[in-house]
Parts: sequence; structure tokens; C-alpha cells
Amino acid sequence: MSVPYLLNSEKGFVPASQRIPAIAKPFVSERAKKTLDLVERFVEEECVPADAIFNQQIKEAGEAHKQNIIGRFESHPQVIEDLKKRARELGLWNMFLPKNHFKEGAGFSNLEYGMMAEYLGKSGVASEACNCAAPDTGNMEVFAKYGTQEQKDKWLKPLLNGEIRSAFLMTEPQVASSDATNIEMSMRKEGNEYVLNGQKWWSSGAGDKRCKIYIVMVKSDPDNSSKYKQQSMVLVPAETPGVTIQRMLSVMGFDDAPHGHGHIKFDNVRVPVSNIILGEGRGFEVAQGRLGPGRIHHAMRSIGAAEKALEWFLARINDPAKKPFGEMLHKQGVILERVAKSRIEIDSARLAVLNAAAKIDEGDAKAALKEIAEVKVEVPKVLLDVLDRAMQAYGGAGISQDTPLAKMWASGRTMRIVDGPDEVHMLQLGRNENKRGDNLRKKLIAQHEKTKELYKQYGLKHEDPLQLNRISGGKSKL
Amino acid sequence: MSVPYLLNSEKGFVPASQRIPAIAKPFVSERAKKTLDLVERFVEEECVPADAIFNQQIKEAGEAHKQNIIGRFESHPQVIEDLKKRARELGLWNMFLPKNHFKEGAGFSNLEYGMMAEYLGKSGVASEACNCAAPDTGNMEVFAKYGTQEQKDKWLKPLLNGEIRSAFLMTEPQVASSDATNIEMSMRKEGNEYVLNGQKWWSSGAGDKRCKIYIVMVKSDPDNSSKYKQQSMVLVPAETPGVTIQRMLSVMGFDDAPHGHGHIKFDNVRVPVSNIILGEGRGFEVAQGRLGPGRIHHAMRSIGAAEKALEWFLARINDPAKKPFGEMLHKQGVILERVAKSRIEIDSARLAVLNAAAKIDEGDAKAALKEIAEVKVEVPKVLLDVLDRAMQAYGGAGISQDTPLAKMWASGRTMRIVDGPDEVHMLQLGRNENKRGDNLRKKLIAQHEKTKELYKQYGLKHEDPLQLNRISGGKSKL
Amino acid sequence: MSVPYLLNSEKGFVPASQRIPAIAKPFVSERAKKTLDLVERFVEEECVPADAIFNQQIKEAGEAHKQNIIGRFESHPQVIEDLKKRARELGLWNMFLPKNHFKEGAGFSNLEYGMMAEYLGKSGVASEACNCAAPDTGNMEVFAKYGTQEQKDKWLKPLLNGEIRSAFLMTEPQVASSDATNIEMSMRKEGNEYVLNGQKWWSSGAGDKRCKIYIVMVKSDPDNSSKYKQQSMVLVPAETPGVTIQRMLSVMGFDDAPHGHGHIKFDNVRVPVSNIILGEGRGFEVAQGRLGPGRIHHAMRSIGAAEKALEWFLARINDPAKKPFGEMLHKQGVILERVAKSRIEIDSARLAVLNAAAKIDEGDAKAALKEIAEVKVEVPKVLLDVLDRAMQAYGGAGISQDTPLAKMWASGRTMRIVDGPDEVHMLQLGRNENKRGDNLRKKLIAQHEKTKELYKQYGLKHEDPLQLNRISGGKSKL
Amino acid sequence: MSVPYLLNSEKGFVPASQRIPAIAKPFVSERAKKTLDLVERFVEEECVPADAIFNQQIKEAGEAHKQNIIGRFESHPQVIEDLKKRARELGLWNMFLPKNHFKEGAGFSNLEYGMMAEYLGKSGVASEACNCAAPDTGNMEVFAKYGTQEQKDKWLKPLLNGEIRSAFLMTEPQVASSDATNIEMSMRKEGNEYVLNGQKWWSSGAGDKRCKIYIVMVKSDPDNSSKYKQQSMVLVPAETPGVTIQRMLSVMGFDDAPHGHGHIKFDNVRVPVSNIILGEGRGFEVAQGRLGPGRIHHAMRSIGAAEKALEWFLARINDPAKKPFGEMLHKQGVILERVAKSRIEIDSARLAVLNAAAKIDEGDAKAALKEIAEVKVEVPKVLLDVLDRAMQAYGGAGISQDTPLAKMWASGRTMRIVDGPDEVHMLQLGRNENKRGDNLRKKLIAQHEKTKELYKQYGLKHEDPLQLNRISGGKSKL
Repeated sequence: MSVPYLLNSEKGFVPASQRIPAIAKPFVSERAKKTLDLVERFVEEECVPADAIFNQQIKEAGEAHKQNIIGRFESHPQVIEDLKKRARELGLWNMFLPKNHFKEGAGFSNLEYGMMAEYLGKSGVASEACNCAAPDTGNMEVFAKYGTQEQKDKWLKPLLNGEIRSAFLMTEPQVASSDATNIEMSMRKEGNEYVLNGQKWWSSGAGDKRCKIYIVMVKSDPDNSSKYKQQSMVLVPAETPGVTIQRMLSVMGFDDAPHGHGHIKFDNVRVPVSNIILGEGRGFEVAQGRLGPGRIHHAMRSIGAAEKALEWFLARINDPAKKPFGEMLHKQGVILERVAKSRIEIDSARLAVLNAAAKIDEGDAKAALKEIAEVKVEVPKVLLDVLDRAMQAYGGAGISQDTPLAKMWASGRTMRIVDGPDEVHMLQLGRNENKRGDNLRKKLIAQHEKTKELYKQYGLKHEDPLQLNRISGGKSKL
Repeated sequence: MSVPYLLNSEKGFVPASQRIPAIAKPFVSERAKKTLDLVERFVEEECVPADAIFNQQIKEAGEAHKQNIIGRFESHPQVIEDLKKRARELGLWNMFLPKNHFKEGAGFSNLEYGMMAEYLGKSGVASEACNCAAPDTGNMEVFAKYGTQEQKDKWLKPLLNGEIRSAFLMTEPQVASSDATNIEMSMRKEGNEYVLNGQKWWSSGAGDKRCKIYIVMVKSDPDNSSKYKQQSMVLVPAETPGVTIQRMLSVMGFDDAPHGHGHIKFDNVRVPVSNIILGEGRGFEVAQGRLGPGRIHHAMRSIGAAEKALEWFLARINDPAKKPFGEMLHKQGVILERVAKSRIEIDSARLAVLNAAAKIDEGDAKAALKEIAEVKVEVPKVLLDVLDRAMQAYGGAGISQDTPLAKMWASGRTMRIVDGPDEVHMLQLGRNENKRGDNLRKKLIAQHEKTKELYKQYGLKHEDPLQLNRISGGKSKL
Repeated sequence: MSVPYLLNSEKGFVPASQRIPAIAKPFVSERAKKTLDLVERFVEEECVPADAIFNQQIKEAGEAHKQNIIGRFESHPQVIEDLKKRARELGLWNMFLPKNHFKEGAGFSNLEYGMMAEYLGKSGVASEACNCAAPDTGNMEVFAKYGTQEQKDKWLKPLLNGEIRSAFLMTEPQVASSDATNIEMSMRKEGNEYVLNGQKWWSSGAGDKRCKIYIVMVKSDPDNSSKYKQQSMVLVPAETPGVTIQRMLSVMGFDDAPHGHGHIKFDNVRVPVSNIILGEGRGFEVAQGRLGPGRIHHAMRSIGAAEKALEWFLARINDPAKKPFGEMLHKQGVILERVAKSRIEIDSARLAVLNAAAKIDEGDAKAALKEIAEVKVEVPKVLLDVLDRAMQAYGGAGISQDTPLAKMWASGRTMRIVDGPDEVHMLQLGRNENKRGDNLRKKLIAQHEKTKELYKQYGLKHEDPLQLNRISGGKSKL
Repeated sequence: MSVPYLLNSEKGFVPASQRIPAIAKPFVSERAKKTLDLVERFVEEECVPADAIFNQQIKEAGEAHKQNIIGRFESHPQVIEDLKKRARELGLWNMFLPKNHFKEGAGFSNLEYGMMAEYLGKSGVASEACNCAAPDTGNMEVFAKYGTQEQKDKWLKPLLNGEIRSAFLMTEPQVASSDATNIEMSMRKEGNEYVLNGQKWWSSGAGDKRCKIYIVMVKSDPDNSSKYKQQSMVLVPAETPGVTIQRMLSVMGFDDAPHGHGHIKFDNVRVPVSNIILGEGRGFEVAQGRLGPGRIHHAMRSIGAAEKALEWFLARINDPAKKPFGEMLHKQGVILERVAKSRIEIDSARLAVLNAAAKIDEGDAKAALKEIAEVKVEVPKVLLDVLDRAMQAYGGAGISQDTPLAKMWASGRTMRIVDGPDEVHMLQLGRNENKRGDNLRKKLIAQHEKTKELYKQYGLKHEDPLQLNRISGGKSKL
């Protein structure tokens, strides 16, 4: 059975392509609109209903083993493979690779894919089903952008085909990794090999048995005078001797199996020198180049998650069985105000993300640094606020396994930390904005000089002889 | 002397047309870009320096009279007439009348004019200088849209020429005017005349001696079965016998002279029946038709005000004379975080307004109800928050007459009340959004039905037999 | 080994009894101060180090079974029994039963025990170790207050001895239980027995194998004209035939094993009529009588949890190994501001709880309704905010199993829902406060009348003849 | 006519002494209770009705002069003298001087007077009427604490009698005065005289013609190696030659006449060396000693102002003439939630202030630094939030002169700046709290060591060998 609401175009249903914000319309091709509508249907009709199946398959796999953790991580839910097959049939595959940079992708702009990513964000399985899941997307971009042909053949090809998965290993437990120059995992060259020692954590996706390749940031040249050239990015196949997944980390109580977040030890791990990406000392460059579009993906999926939270919120407050004090919740002004707040916040945040995407499409991610940083901070906050309101409306059900809200909250909360905590981005944004400061002071002083002339011209008393000083920081006596 | 920063295109200066958000670019014509840059220069170089002159001319006029209030309201600062002359020379006149509706205007879209309005919002005198000041703009739209030829000749023409000003009288002190059906001022027909009795307040602009015409909403048919047809909109020349300005209201301590906010008494005021707009009982229709674009203007001017607040904020934290505890304020993380927050909030809010404008341009204000309501609530909040941060950075100077911040705050605060308090718009937004509620519940139920099929198909245990019930509000026994 | 910091009274350590807020000092006896210091040491030196042991014993029990869930819930960590033995040796047992109501307790006031509860809130095992854990505390109060001698002998005695545990079953999944009149589980009388049918969820503690008795709220007289007399409170031993724990609920991803939160089915469950508490139709009365002190316990434990979060926060920002961008986090103003905010919020909230406790001690919980409702809403918000700041400072570690923060956040989040969601308490508080409204209007009118007299007396012009009307809602003409 | 609500003890009226928070009761003597009730009646029945008279007398004085500003500042409203007479009759005079430090006062503790100050805060004239107005209170404390007998006779005596007023001059326009070491006004010794040059602003009260004496902080020894010994505090009679009030500053649009806030120039002003307070170089010491109790006064008056705002809020939402959409505002959940929030915030904040006062009474202001700083930041925020809610409920009336709310908001806003901006206090609070950081880390490490022993003792696997390292910042290899 399919989802009748969508299929039958019942009253009130307006497909995604007809709900594009007015200001974004010029950026969306007819082909992208068709794909967008298809994504919406695929997600709502096939992926969302499969989310519970995915969770249950993992759970039963876990219970079928003596060792709890390993059971949950050893299984691979069949439903995901079925959905991948279905997505390929529908032509919904690798939509993420932006058309202006990569020939391997589906030919959409970042803004167009961003709109699709919103819908992918409404299901836990949809992104993987369309081969658009992190961290593979960013890793594929790295291979496509910086990889040698050999590296592309060996890793990009099976990644693009959804045959393997990958992880990106940067963060380390013993240092403040929000400043990536702090990383300590060492790499030294011995003959034709690099020898790696150290540990990484929050290696997302490393729990999955299909995760075959790690892109690892290491400190290769700790004495380099530039602290941005001390790092290299190197490929380490997951099965390389000396690599041990020490343990899996939980996120607000969830293990996120089977992908999970690994804490991984590297003990004299050896890889051929051909496994370097772009060259020794260029790790920072690779890391920087990887970031922009991925943040758009995260942000738009979060927008979709926020819309889903609002949908669950609305469903609850219209549930005729839930009448505290004799009335459905949607009769209460406090509740309606929260609905309105959610609507306002989501709509503004979406526009901010789409504008950032348009800016990337216009040039590159570097030109859109400000816009990307803005949505990196704004969007998770909106998502968490909307989720909190929905959870509260559901009472006990909202924090339990009976709604998707608690799990979504946990994932949303991580967004304020991954790729650097909010605080780092805020500080950077503030510093960049502050660069205008001196020029602005000069402008205010010049405007004040003009005002002083006008005082004379109009024969007025100058009331505040000190104002200019206050603006200029001058110290003239009265 | 002009303002060198702008004139000399010093390093760092990028004109307005080059700072248009990526996503808004397709909507701005080359002609609009040129005008936009001209508006920016006119505001920064001529209007902002004149703001202090305007205030001082009013102040000295006030001191020149025995009666404080009347002095401030009787004068008309010469600087405003000089700026109007200059604006006409530059071709910056009546930009607000949207091109798709009015032949009288300058031929810009709402989005294009919105961008210009942002800059007008940086000066207290700029809007009037360009004949784009409220409430005249809305009133001119009323005349252009609903006026008879006679009404147009008599009132629209001098308004378009900036020869007179006007007021819009709706709110009343004795009732809850946030619900306009409550208004009580009466109108009865006697022969060829209407006789009006009652009182209005917050009649903005009525203090100005050049304010010649009031558009007044009255209760003409209190017994009409439709409470939206009990009202009429009628023209009352300011000098009509029986009209008394009872007193002027202050806004957070400011009298906003010479325009001001009047509390006006109508005592058997008589006007000819030809003064009706659109016809008896159509007052609500006129009021509704007046609102949309005006809210965009308010919102974009508020965005401009927020940018100005941020500029003053940045100027202060880079003032070398202000070093509490040995460091300039921009060295402090707390301050930089506030700069970043301000940047994020302004940028998001601007996109929301531009999108609302694009939506109006696409169809009409009615189609953009949601978008307009969203910015009506969001933008003043952003403005007040940014202003508060700037004020705090300035300490005592920030709340005194030495910066424009306190006055801007007072004006910004009213934006949460005028045209209906936030709460009314939030409630309306919430109710409209909630209309999706039933359909969403049906979708969630249909998705759950699909999930139940998948449980069977994949041979899984159904963990929560109650989930559907919880969504659907059903009450099946376990 | 014991915890040296505390034992050795190293510099800087000030015991709990010397950190009592100035205003609370008159309420704390010397005996209570000694016990308070003992509680602090017991918690810090013995309970906190045992928290990880408790978690690990549960975890290994879970992994030792094929069936994940049941394993975690079937075990009973030995460490808890060892701590209980230790607590009894120290005389730290049943401190919660307030001295002015119950002879069975340790003889402390609610305020005194509240101070101890703060320290219990710093460890996951301390409350149970001292036999002061919810829901047993509330249930013991019910038995002590309303129980027959037979009921006391059978259930209160072993509860006071820590031999069994108990659950309180009120909430139901199919109705809006935030309004308790909605509950539907039925009870009918057949001879000397009651027959129960229905379901309950969020039956906290029901997962524990030592949980032997349920206090269950049922609808016994659905047709009673008073909707507060339709309910009865009845005792159901956990092993009664027809009782099935359908499943355990998770809280933000945590199962809270072994106590857990049960979803329980009652299928023709029969208990003798002597199992009624206080009498048929008096369920609401019992429920009301149970609530007050328990909310103080929750609130003070939450204060303790917030202090613990702040301690972890401070520990992190002083960690010499964590230097993003070259400086420890405590050098950053943004971080210090968050520390200060946390300090302010915790200190205010603690005073609010202690005042509520003093108010209960002065009379009873009924007289303290307002004060209790206030802290019910305020305290969890403070706790969650402080936790969020601490989590953010830790980055990935803060949301993982490596700190206690994520689990504390999940528990804290439930506090906004249990015993009624915030919204219900806010509405009630608002309504009660609003009862003053009419009298206040009369006062303002009377003051205005006096002002009018003074206008005359001082020979002044009355500027606003309408003001009184505006206050009074009168409608006099001008 | 008096105010009947209070006089007649109508139903619902409970006098102040019976509304003392439970936890504060032990601190209030019977005598203080009686005075407290008297203060409440005096304020509600005589001062509040006189507030409008005061404003109108100032206004008419302003209009009676050609020069606006000077008119408003030259007058002295008669009503204030009448109220002073009345207060002395009632024995309500100089209640502020704390009994444990000054024999000159009325013999109350800081906590007791704090409670009275709450009621004084409900009227604009009450504090002055009882001779308890800032800045005189702090200045009288300075004289009583540090003054020579000559200084006391000349200035303290008339101040205690309410015959003159005074000002405290510290802040300067050209430097960042939030750091008082920055002040620049110079003092040099010439024979038996000091010669003063420089400027001060925000000299509150200096506008009043009865303000006869300035206590002025100057830089007397700029080369002193200790930057806290470079300042002196010196007495300057207002009429001394060379002293010019340059202009008066406005606060959010209000001029606060007749007291006002002066910007004062000192041009070779000469005073005898006997005018020094405490001695050269001891300016900081005097400034520090002046601060504590004054912040309690401000805070408790702000609590009273917040209560008044809530009263006006409640009066409005129960106004039968104000029914937007057919219902009084108190029927709306959004409004009731704001009432509840206000109730919670005010009650918590009051407890925080009373606790700070108790702490001062227990020892001195120095011991209560933390508590004072906490309320310095918390209370104005609460006041402004409650005011904002009340203003919003009133719509236009809330921001106009028709309610006291706008003026109260302006005054409340300054509280976030005077005596140092919030940010300075937050930073200081954060730094002080952070001093515990190292000890806390040691405690957590010791607790973890104990846990490790327990792992062994219970035969458990140690899941996270890195945890200790993470806490300790150690860097052991895996």
C-alpha cells in the first residue's frame, strides 16, 4: 500500500515544486523540479515508512547476539539495500555532486540539490538510499576533486556505486580538535610507506562493516613553520593491520548503529606513499576544500527535519483523543504561538541556506564563507527549538521511542558541535564582520564633519561639541 | 563637504548594488541597481548628516515658544525641504509605488523598492525627502487604487508632489483596536453629508501643520449582520470644523515632532458624501488593500536601521579611546559573539522580507499573507535585539541623545504594536498553519499503515502495537 | 582509596554546612548540618565513584544475555546493595520523611532534607542508597499518610527497610494524562474483589525485579457527577495474574535500566477490596496529597545536578590539554559569561526551592501551591541550560558516554513533563495570579481618583481626561 | 480622599508584612513589619497618586519658560515637599542607613529596609519623600562612614534633614568609565587648595537646584605604581567658580527633570584641601565602600517596579472594555503564560536580593560581593521583561505617557549600565567562580581513581581507559 495522501493528490496537497519560495524560483530548472517532486514522493511514501523497519532490523540483530554492541553493528538492514535499488530505478542517485564542478554527478546545482536534501532529511534512511549520505558525500567530493586516477578507480567508483562506505577521521580525543592545528596523530615516512600512530574518535560511519576506507588527517611535519602545513591527508583502508576500533561512542544515549561513531587506534599502521591525497603538508587544504557544500547538505536536511517535527507537532495538536481539560491542543493560544514561531524560524532559515547555496553556485564555497557559517549556526538552533516544542506537545511519547523526535533531537544536538562548535564559527563571523569597523568609524566621523558644516550653514547652535570626539575617540578639551 | 568614505571609493567600499544577496539578484533590474546606489549615496552623504540638523531645528523651534509642545509641532525644519529638492534633482522620488499596479510611480517592483527602503531606513529624514514616508505612501496607494478622479485630483496629486501630508485614522483609545471590528467612531448620513462623532488616537503625522487630509475609518452600519461591512472609510480634511487635536502622544518619551501622534476628537464633523472611499460599508476592504506593501516598507527600513545599529556598534568597539581594562571592546569574545549574532539575524530577516516582496510582486499582497505576517513579527525583534547590543556597548552614550540608538529603539518598539500587535499576527499564522493538521495526521497514519505492511513483509516483530493508535487517536484495546 | 580533596580538607574546600545561603541559615538545625556534611562526603567519596560501576554492571548483565533488554532489566547491581549497607551504617536513611508529619522518618524538615537532596542529586545511585529514591518516597508517604495498618505492615515496612521497591501508576498512553480526569483504566467491584482492566505507561521503577507493589489510579465511578470523585487508588502487587509489562519505554535514547519505565497491561486483574487506599472515589485526594514534598525533592536533586554540571564545565575549561587556538577555554569571555549565568541561575533557583520548602514546613503543601509550581517550572529550565553549556564546552565528549552530562540532560528533560507538563503549571499559576486582577483595577482607579483631587488641589491642568477611562474601561465621551 | 482598596481592607487585601516570603521571616522584626505596612500604605495611598502631579508640575514649569530645558530643571514641584512633611510625620525617614553601621539611621537592617525599598520602587516620588533617594543615600553613607566632623556638620546634617541634595561624579565621557581606573579628571595641589580640571557626565541629580554638593572622583596621582591609588575623592560645592553644567543628558528620550543627568565641566575649580575624603589616593577605597547597600536598594526598588508593572498588566487584561476578538485578554493562554513567567521571575529575583541583603547584614558588603553582583545582573533583566509584557498588553497606551510603563522601562534599562555594565559584573562573577576550577578537576580525578579501584574490586571490564586522561588532560598512549 502506498501513502494515499500523496498519491491521491487529496485536497490540500501541493507538491514540493509548487512550494518553492518565490525568491528561489529562478534558480530551479524544470528538470530539478521534476526530480524534487520525485524525491518528495520517494521519501514520504517509501523511506519514512521504512525508518521503523530499519530500526527494528538493527534491534533484532542486536538481540540475536550475545554481545549487545557488536550485534547491532554487525548487521546490515536489508531494507536499505531494497531502497537503494528502488532509488536507482527512480533515477534518484548521487544528486549531491554539484554540476558546475563534477561530471560524475546528477547535474544539479547546490541550490537544487539543497531543496532535495530537505526532503531526504525527513527520513533516517533516505540519504543513504539515494547515495547522498554523509560522510560519503564529502569524501566522494575529495576523491573527485583531489584524487589520483588510481585513487578514483579504487575508491571513488565503488562509492559512487554505493558498494562501499567511507569515513573521515580528523577529531582526536586528547586535544581540542575544534582547532584542527592541535591534532597529534603522527605520520612518518619509511621507504615507500607511511607509518601512522595515534588515535581518532567521532569517526562517523566506521561502525558499518561496509565502511572500507578512511580519509585520515595526520600531523606529518610538526616542525613546519606554518601551522597550516604540518598536516597531511592520507588514505587508510579499514582492514589495514594495526587499525583497531577501540569502542563505539554514543550520542545522547543513541549508538547510531550500524554506522556509529568509532574511537579508533592506529598502532604502527603502514600504507603506501601513493595513499597521500594531494601531497604531503596539504592536509589543511583538502580539509578546507571538503567543507562548504556538505554544510549546505546538513543544513537543508535539518530544515527537512524541522518541517517533519512541525508536522508531528501539528498532528498531535489535532489528535481528537488528546484533550487535556476538554479541548484539543490546537485550541490553545500558547500552542498556536509555538506553531507560528516554528513556521517563522524555519522559513527564514531555509532562505538563508538557499541563499548560501546560490552563493556557492555563483562562485565557490570560499566566496560563501560568511553565508555558510551563518547557516551552520542558525539552522541547528531552529531545528532544536522546533523539536523541543513538538516533544513537549507529545509529553511522554515525545521523549520515548514512540515518536522520531528524541532521536532527531540527539542528531540535531550534534550539529552544534560537528565541523566545529558554534562558538568557533561565531567568533570567526564576528572577527570578519569587525574588519569593517575602522572604515565605519571613518564614515561616521565624515558624516559628523558634514553635520558640523550644516550647523553653520543653517545657523544652528551645536548642542554637543563632544559628539565627534566620542565617535572618533579624540580627546579635545571642552 | 561630502562624505569622503563613499565618494572616494576608498578601499573596502562596495556599493549597495554589489552587495545584493545572491538569491535576490535575478529580481533586480540594471535600472534599479543604479537607483539603489544613488539612494545609498544620497542617504549616507546627505540625509544622515542632516538628521542632527532636523532634530536641532525642531528643538530650537520648541525653545522659541512659550508653549513647549506647540512650538515643536508648529515648526517645519527647512532642511527637509532642501533635501526634497535635492532628491527630485537626483530622480529619487515616489519610488515606492509598485510598477505592476500604479502608473504614477517610479516603476520599480516591491522587491526593488524594498532594497532602496533599507537605505532610507538609515536616516530619520530620508523617507520624507524622497516622498516615500509613511503614512503617505499607504494613503497614496489608497487614492491611486480606490480614489475617484476628484479625490485623486484633490489629494493624490499634491501628495505625489510632496506638497501636503496625510494621516490614516483607525485606532481608538477606548476599545481594543487590535481587532478593528471594535472601532466605535460613528458616521451617519444627513442629506448630502456624513456626520462624524468620536475619537481617534495614534493618528501619526497629524501633528505636522502640512498634514491636510485624514483617511478615517468609521462605524457606519453597526447593525450590519457582517461585522466586516459595518465600517466605512471617509476623507476628512484636517481643518474641518469640529476636528480637534486633543493632545499629542509620546512614544517611549519621544514626541516625534513635528509629525507626532495625535489624539483627535470629532464633534459633529460634517463632510460631503463624495468623501467616501469606494462606498459605504467597504471600509474593511480598503483597510486590507492598504496593508501589504507598507509592511514590506516598514520591514526593510527596519533592516536598514538594524544595519545602522550594527555600524554604530562596530564603530564603538573599534574606538581606540574606549579601552575598559586595557583593551578595545572588539577584543572581547562576548562582544564579537554579539556582532556575529546580529549579522546572522539581520541577514536571515532581510531574505525573509525580500522573499515576501518577491511573493507580492509575483501576485498580490493577498497571496503573500503568510510571508508578510512572518516578517511583521520577525523583523522588529531583530532590530530591537541589535539595537540593544549596540546601546549596551556604548554604555551611557547609548541611551542618551549622543547616539541615534535610543530614538531608533523607541521607534523599533512601536513596530511590535502598529498594524496589530505581534500576538494577533502570531495567532493568525498559527491558525493558518494548523489548517494542515488533519491532512498531516492522515499522512502519518497512512505512513504507519505502510510500515505495518513492511513489518510483515520483512518478518519482523511489531514492537509497538499502540503507535498507530497514538497517532490516530484511536482507542483499540491492547 | 577515598577522595583526597574532600578528606584532607585541602585549601579551598568548604563543607556544605558552611555554604548554606545566608537567608536559609535560621532553618537548619545543628543536627541537620552534621548530617548534611555527612551526605556530601558520602555522595562525593562513595556514590559518585560508584556511578560508573552501576552502569557497567548493568551493561555487562545486558551483554551476558541473549535478549538485550531483559538482560539489562533482570540484573541488580551489587554496588547498590553495598552502598545501602554503608548508608545505614552512616545513619543516612529515610531522611526524606518530614518530621512534622511522620514519626517513621529521620526527623528533618523539608528544607533540611531539601539541602541533603541537592547532594543526592549529584549521583545516580545516592538517592536509592539512602532509601530516598522516587517513586518510593512518595509512595511511602502515601502509605504513612493514608494506609491501613495492614497495608503499612505489608508494604510500608519493607519499603522503609529498602527491601522492596514500588511504582506509582497514573499516566495512560491513549489519553491526555496531563489532565488526570482523563484516565480510563477501569475498576469494577465483584464480591470481595476489584477487577481491573486497561493500561498504564511511564510506570517508573516497574522494570526493577525488586518492584513488588504498584499504587494504581483507576476510574472506578465514571458516572459520578464530580469528575474528581470518579477515581480510586488501589494497590496491585506486581505478580498479580493478568498484569503484563508490555514493554519498556526509553527516555531520549536511555532505557534507565534496571528501574526503567514500563508500559503495563491489566487484563481482568483481581485484587481484594482491602487493597483500596482511603476508600473508593478518593483517588484524586490521595494523588494530591502525594505531590508537594516530592516536587521539592526533584527540584533540589536538580539543583545538585546543575551544580555537578557546572563543576564538570569548570573542570573542562581549566583542562590544560584542551587549548583551542592556543588558550584554555576559561580565558574566553564567552565561556566566563556562561559560567556567570549558570551561577546566577542556580543560586536564584535554589533560593526559590528552599523558600517553597520553608513554606511547606510552615504549614503544608497546599499552602505552598504557588511556590511549588514556580520551582516545578523554573528549576528544570535552569538545569537544562547549565547542562547545555557544559556539554557544548566538552564538544563530542559532552554528548557521549564519557561524561555524565548527556544522561543528566535526558533525565532533566523529563522533568519538564513528569507530574504535568510545564504548560499546565504555567496556566494554573497564571490563573491564580490573575485572581488579583479585579482588585488591582479597583486600586488603580482609586489611585486615579485621588490624583484627580490632587490636580484640583494644586491647581493643575488635567492633561489626560481619558486616563481614568482607560484604566476603568469606562466609555465616557470627551 | 484616600485609596479605598487599602484603607478598607477589602477582601483580598493582605498587607505587606503578611506577604513576606517564608524564608525571610526570621529576619524581620515586629517593628520593621509595622514600618513596612506603613510604607506600603504611604506609597499606595499618597505617593502613587502624586506621581502624575509631580510630572505635571514639572511640565507646566517647563512650558512657563521660554527656554524649554531650563524651565523643567528650574522648578521644584511643591508636591514633593508636602510628601516629605507627611513622611516625617509618619516616621518614614532615612530608613536606609543600616543599623549595624550607622547610628544616624532609623535602625533597620539592610534586609528590612530592602523590603521597604520594594514599595518605594512603586512610585517615582516615594524614595525622595522618605529621604531614601539615590544618589543621596550612598553619599550620606560616604559622609557617615568616611567624613570628618566638619564635613558631616556641613553636608551630612542637611542631607539627613532633606534640606539639600547631592551628586556623585565618577563617569567621564571621553574614556571607558566602566573601568574606573580610566578616569582622567585631574587634581593638583596648590598651597591649601586643590585645582580640578576635566569633565564628568551622568552626574545624576545635578540638574536639581537643591543639589548643593558633589562628591567627585579625580585622578590625583597618575604616576602611582598602583593603579588603584591614583584616584582621590574630593568634595566640590555646586556653586564653586569654574563649575559649569554643560548640558543635561536624556535617558531613552526622558530628561528626568528636575534631577536629571548632568554633563559638567570643571575649569580650574579650586577647593580647600580639607575637602578631601579619607585622604589623597584613597578614592577607590571610598568608591568601593559606597557600593554594596546601594545596589540592594536599586534592586529592591526594581522588584517593586516589576510588581507594579505586573499590577498594570493584570489590570489591563481584566479591563472589560478591552476585548479583542470578543474576549478579555486574561482568557488567552499566551497572556496567562506571561503572567506566570513574570510571577516566577519576580519571586526568584526577590529572594536573591533578600539573600544578598541578609549576607550583608551578616558581615559586610565585601563578603556579599558574589550575591550583590548576581542581583545587579538578574534584577534589571526581570524588570525589563515584565515591563515589556505589560507594555505589549496595553498596545499604544503602553508606550505612551498614559501609563507609567514607558518611563519605568527607560529607568530600568539604565540599570543594566549604571554602576558598571552587566558585562563587567558577569566577567567578574565568571572569573571568581572559575577559581574553583583547579580544585574541581582534582576532585573529579580523585573520584575517577576511586572508580578504577572499584572496577577491580567488582571484577569489571574498564570500558574507557581514556576517561581519566580526558579529565586530567593527561596524554597517555592507549
